[in-house]
Amino acid sequence: MMGLKIMKYGGKEMVEHDGDQSFIPPINFANVEDRVYRSGFPQPGNFAFLETLQLRSVIYLCTEPYPRENLEFLKSRNIRLFQFGIDGTKEPSVDILRSTITEALKVLIDVRIHPVLIHCKRGKHRTGCLVGTLRKVQNWCLSSVLEEYKIHAGVKSRDTDLKFLETYDVSYLRQCLHSVIYQYHGYGSKKRRLLSGEKTFCTNPE
Amino acid sequence: MMGLKIMKYGGKEMVEHDGDQSFIPPINFANVEDRVYRSGFPQPGNFAFLETLQLRSVIYLCTEPYPRENLEFLKSRNIRLFQFGIDGTKEPSVDILRSTITEALKVLIDVRIHPVLIHCKRGKHRTGCLVGTLRKVQNWCLSSVLEEYKIHAGVKSRDTDLKFLETYDVSYLRQCLHSVIYQYHGYGSKKRRLLSGEKTFCTNPE
Repeated sequence: MMGLKIMKYGGKEMVEHDGDQSFIPPINFANVEDRVYRSGFPQPGNFAFLETLQLRSVIYLCTEPYPRENLEFLKSRNIRLFQFGIDGTKEPSVDILRSTITEALKVLIDVRIHPVLIHCKRGKHRTGCLVGTLRKVQNWCLSSVLEEYKIHAGVKSRDTDLKFLETYDVSYLRQCLHSVIYQYHGYGSKKRRLLSGEKTFCTNPE
Repeated sequence: MMGLKIMKYGGKEMVEHDGDQSFIPPINFANVEDRVYRSGFPQPGNFAFLETLQLRSVIYLCTEPYPRENLEFLKSRNIRLFQFGIDGTKEPSVDILRSTITEALKVLIDVRIHPVLIHCKRGKHRTGCLVGTLRKVQNWCLSSVLEEYKIHAGVKSRDTDLKFLETYDVSYLRQCLHSVIYQYHGYGSKKRRLLSGEKTFCTNPE
């Protein structure tokens, strides 16, 4: 290997290989944020590229089981898989999107799982919905959220998804986050603990 | 301000403002790499968002002078402007693209100027060409380079740009990079210095 490391991009080393290796990102690949990526379904031909991202996790948004080769790749690189299945054979209802995407979003915003790749099949609809809700948490204005969705969905843009993004209310997620903060830092003089999934608190006797 | 810092994304703090501030990214905004961003022309309404990126530089690819408000914003935040003018009123020739984009690329790949925003007017053609050459330096396969160009150019995709990206040869740039490496680290027992723009070396007597 005549490779020569010439610089670092973020966490990744950019390696000059004198043309001996060409990287193939998955279809519809993009950086979302530093250490957060999105794409369509990765094929084995994309694994060399994915290695350069030094992923810690994958968030997978389809109902189908993860293919064996992909599972083996994740396992060999110690990458954790989070699956939140949304049926892609028909347009999901806003209600289904809301509940499943919220669960995925709770995982996505935890920086301890980054670097993370979000993907579904084509990286357009399910992935676009999850990224769009992240943008709402980041206080992006709605028109920018929808523009980004459309850039990646192209002519396949779906009205259900746009409606979902328009109406998605981040206050529930914020409530969860506040609860997590209380859990770790205490609240006032009394430490509290969030009972996951029950939306009730119990006072931690410390 | 009721804002509450809840987490960090890369270099940026994600601030929860309880809805009191909405961020408006410039049109066609995207992350290219960690600490490298692309977009259309930023308007004053986008400045609050741009602040969250903690930019050190802007690479601007139009011939028109930078607007006063934008200059003032950059100055107040100590952001350096690099302008590489490419005429947007007509499709530039492959030759013009090659020479100007190469100059811009030499600046772009220097991590000392990051975080950096690349922009032209709409973030489609000139910006797409510069990002595409960066991908070639990163050894992305050609079809992925062109797919990324098209995602952001949409229906405005230009054959000249695609031709430019297809034929762009990164070996000249790599030669420059090797020269810079020689300049900093010496080459064998003799230190060398690159005379910028002259493509000749002189032995540094040290």
